[in-house]
Amino acid sequence: MIVSVIGLGLIGGSMAIDLKKRGFADRVLGVENDPVNAAAAEKIGLVDEVVSFDDAVSRGDIVIIAVPVGTAVKMLPQVLDRFAGTKDKIVIDTCSTKGQIVRCVHYHPMRSRYVATHPMAGTEYSGPWAAMPNLFDGRACIFANSEESDPKAVKTIENLYDVLNMRPIYMNADNHDVHTAYVSHISHVTSFALALTVLDKEKDEKHIFDLASGGFSSTVRLAKSNADMWVPILSQNRDNVLQVIDTYIDKMKEFREAISDYDEEKIRSLIGEANRIKKILR
Amino acid sequence: MIVSVIGLGLIGGSMAIDLKKRGFADRVLGVENDPVNAAAAEKIGLVDEVVSFDDAVSRGDIVIIAVPVGTAVKMLPQVLDRFAGTKDKIVIDTCSTKGQIVRCVHYHPMRSRYVATHPMAGTEYSGPWAAMPNLFDGRACIFANSEESDPKAVKTIENLYDVLNMRPIYMNADNHDVHTAYVSHISHVTSFALALTVLDKEKDEKHIFDLASGGFSSTVRLAKSNADMWVPILSQNRDNVLQVIDTYIDKMKEFREAISDYDEEKIRSLIGEANRIKKILR
Repeated sequence: MIVSVIGLGLIGGSMAIDLKKRGFADRVLGVENDPVNAAAAEKIGLVDEVVSFDDAVSRGDIVIIAVPVGTAVKMLPQVLDRFAGTKDKIVIDTCSTKGQIVRCVHYHPMRSRYVATHPMAGTEYSGPWAAMPNLFDGRACIFANSEESDPKAVKTIENLYDVLNMRPIYMNADNHDVHTAYVSHISHVTSFALALTVLDKEKDEKHIFDLASGGFSSTVRLAKSNADMWVPILSQNRDNVLQVIDTYIDKMKEFREAISDYDEEKIRSLIGEANRIKKILR
Repeated sequence: MIVSVIGLGLIGGSMAIDLKKRGFADRVLGVENDPVNAAAAEKIGLVDEVVSFDDAVSRGDIVIIAVPVGTAVKMLPQVLDRFAGTKDKIVIDTCSTKGQIVRCVHYHPMRSRYVATHPMAGTEYSGPWAAMPNLFDGRACIFANSEESDPKAVKTIENLYDVLNMRPIYMNADNHDVHTAYVSHISHVTSFALALTVLDKEKDEKHIFDLASGGFSSTVRLAKSNADMWVPILSQNRDNVLQVIDTYIDKMKEFREAISDYDEEKIRSLIGEANRIKKILR
């Protein structure tokens, strides 16, 4: 099996490593637009060969699109166009929003050769040097609108994610975008806002470094995430993200009011309610 | 040297472990109000002996007050009262806000026997079972208003924190409260608000569990923190915390507007600005 990975960043690179190492792929081809990243990917040995987009699509049995979602939405129809006349090729994407990408190929004659997935794993780092083995182990992978894909193609991709030790979850693409707005996209926005606040209020960077507790570091960690990936996610998932931001601002205001009123009973009850998250995330 | 630890939770318990293990204390006495926690602390062997408050103060060469700051503010003058007629005893506290506690003993005749400190370490867990070795290694410890303490007492406490492998930072108590509002207290509030938002929007707890990425878990981690500790901190540091919350809400609104306007350039520049935190916290 030849697997072509388009986009040799954290996700694509990490998939390349484990799919090769664990024997799912006999050969991994990589496509990388950025010349520095391409050279690094080759030097690190992320893939067997860095090739052109056309080569990757024509030679790969499975094509993995692992680029920011704004680019992926344009690239996916081009891949499916090139599948015309072939029978067993499969293309998947790994993007964090699914509504728009699924809609953009809904009527494509080769639609059934596409399996929409979202492997829910990552770190705040990006680029080929961020790729690592075992990134996906034990995490969830969402299959969106899989009823629109060929069942045999879905089976093959289930197998691919099984090799990566991921738990499959099946979901409608629009539901996916609602849920990820709650449990993933909002955390990035709160982290970015936290970093901006601290950088704004605390002019002395040495103080930030000296005083940053482990708690602050973990809360602000996602603020290191990269704009190329996050701008299109926030933009594509605009409506859901706005709704969650509004609820979030309301909650902050409740806290603000309770603190402002010295209403310790109210603060205690808000914290107690928030503590319920302990039972859900152990 | 006999060290008495009042409050055998995460901080007090962890200090007890390392001060004994690393030979600073020959004997560690513990005081714990909660009977379940006291029994657990004894069973775990956190301290050599669980004793009464009076015993701890009269027998300890160093008394460590490691209770929530609301209680500490009442307890510290009682400890200093009992120091009357003694010469070499020292009391320290480990609280996360310093302005009020330092003010409440400013005119106490035994003031010089008190050293105000804030070891900046912790986890989101609490209680004697949360105590662990090496918790403080490599972290910062703030000494607040140390010019009001006897220099020899400060030296002894510097030595104590040196044994815990902490870096001392000297700061005015009010400045301390401003800076910790920025880099510690606000992260807790944002985390609590995030947990409340997700619990409010996502009624299906299984979805939270299934979909929670590592990023969400780390951003929401502090929401597991305990109300007994955090209610008095937020209340005592009210003015500073309110200021930071206001800046924070402004930043969230900037994000909201940029996303709402599909203003990708603005989102990109906000994320780029937030990314500066990378250079400060490696």
